[in-house]
Amino acid sequence: MAFPKQVRMVEMSPRDGLQNEPGPVIATRIKTGLIDRLADCGLTHIESASFVSPKWVPQMGDADKVMAGIKRKPGVRYSVLTPNLRGFENALAAGVDEVAVFGAASESFSQKNINCSIAESLDRFLPVMEAAKQHNIPVRGYVSTVLGCPYEGDIAPEQVAKVAKALADMGCYEISLGDTIGVGTPQKAKRMLEAVTAHVPVEKLAAHFHDTYGQALANLYAVLEEGVAVIDASVAGLGGCPYAKGASGNVATEDVLYLLQGLGIETGVDLNKLVTTGNWISGQLRRHNGSKVGQALGGQC
Amino acid sequence: MAFPKQVRMVEMSPRDGLQNEPGPVIATRIKTGLIDRLADCGLTHIESASFVSPKWVPQMGDADKVMAGIKRKPGVRYSVLTPNLRGFENALAAGVDEVAVFGAASESFSQKNINCSIAESLDRFLPVMEAAKQHNIPVRGYVSTVLGCPYEGDIAPEQVAKVAKALADMGCYEISLGDTIGVGTPQKAKRMLEAVTAHVPVEKLAAHFHDTYGQALANLYAVLEEGVAVIDASVAGLGGCPYAKGASGNVATEDVLYLLQGLGIETGVDLNKLVTTGNWISGQLRRHNGSKVGQALGGQC
Repeated sequence: MAFPKQVRMVEMSPRDGLQNEPGPVIATRIKTGLIDRLADCGLTHIESASFVSPKWVPQMGDADKVMAGIKRKPGVRYSVLTPNLRGFENALAAGVDEVAVFGAASESFSQKNINCSIAESLDRFLPVMEAAKQHNIPVRGYVSTVLGCPYEGDIAPEQVAKVAKALADMGCYEISLGDTIGVGTPQKAKRMLEAVTAHVPVEKLAAHFHDTYGQALANLYAVLEEGVAVIDASVAGLGGCPYAKGASGNVATEDVLYLLQGLGIETGVDLNKLVTTGNWISGQLRRHNGSKVGQALGGQC
Repeated sequence: MAFPKQVRMVEMSPRDGLQNEPGPVIATRIKTGLIDRLADCGLTHIESASFVSPKWVPQMGDADKVMAGIKRKPGVRYSVLTPNLRGFENALAAGVDEVAVFGAASESFSQKNINCSIAESLDRFLPVMEAAKQHNIPVRGYVSTVLGCPYEGDIAPEQVAKVAKALADMGCYEISLGDTIGVGTPQKAKRMLEAVTAHVPVEKLAAHFHDTYGQALANLYAVLEEGVAVIDASVAGLGGCPYAKGASGNVATEDVLYLLQGLGIETGVDLNKLVTTGNWISGQLRRHNGSKVGQALGGQC
């Protein structure tokens, strides 16, 4: 057991959170208000938008306006998802600090989600990687369905390792391992991580666990024991699960912070401010606050 | 690391769950319907009621009717809480299989909750222990506030160990360690357990963790690693937290089972039936289903 002394939190709510929220398109000023509040809480890495066709993700249609509307706080990385070169160019024009690309560990998920094979999806990232390199923009890579797929069920850890290695070899500085549908349990998470670290050092890995089955904190605890020191989460647990109506999505940042504080791991994030932010955005969206810490400390649920 | 191969689940919803539910007194037929369904799911230990003055806990005022109304399934232990000799005698008359007594690890909590010192509360159990022995009724002991107290904050692990040892010495066959307000995190849970196992063998211990801050499954995972093989939980996460309005109480049995299944640990409980039961009781009480597994598999939230 060797817990990290510090963990970098990567805040997912403006992108992975809001894009999975049901209901009408959220006003740009609410999105920028959320991002500015998150930066004020001490979060230093905020995935702020997705530069994807609004046909596919209407909720992210105002990505350029969001990037123009936020107050850039020094020391904060405002990253965005860019699935292709067009997205990258738009993101670059909007002045982003960092971009991210998104591959799946499951062949069926890749086909159904982005309509191409895993290999084809990786090929599509090559021009993005090339352009990012030219402009000195760091690229983060996501691997989805690392602990299970809604179409295939179990995913072989070696398959996750293969895709993670491909993204690292391509030039991604960090690979975020996503349990997209939240089906993992701690020993599965450990086995998956062991397979990946045989090819990519743990220092380059992040854990991106959804809480659909309530397992995210147990899974995070298990991979923290293995030295993972970057965690993706979403304030108030923003974001649902497109594969189970009414179910939870991203693990709540507040709940992760509470765990880390209890383990004596530093993040630089102010939990009380974050609880206030979680209650604020839950109120704006008229949704249940998906963070148990938010409910317990904030008196709202 | 030595996970147990099997875990005995102790179902808390009819007692610790329902007594903390806000709202009007629940009809006896709903309580008996819940208990019978839980037994049908394969649960073999169901804490079914509390024989306490209805002045103190109106929700448990029909304990004798509940015990008379359930269908006794062979192999299932129907236990009840008996805080004093009068409660024990009423429980005996109702034909219970097992009783339980309840001590606190926090002096302030004991004073505010049951209006006496820890030592005085233990003294009050002596006649219950004596009578139980005469009638060959096993007694389970609870220790509350083992990872924190709403009035005192941190509780020394040695203080928990002292109370647990006193209950074991008194004749309790099992001691259930309760994080009553759900404030613990995994390393704190491990340290507390280590202090207790210095005096009481792990085979005599159960984990009773509330999920108020979302930490229960991570904490359970941590103590499973230390060999704890009895877990208290409540279907649909029934039961709130009297110290934080709207917050969660007992960890949901469904979510614990999902964790245990993922770790390859057997319980003999049918998860799908339990999800159905969780959705049934949530519907009867017109409450949100507090189990994430219940939400994900049951399509209700």
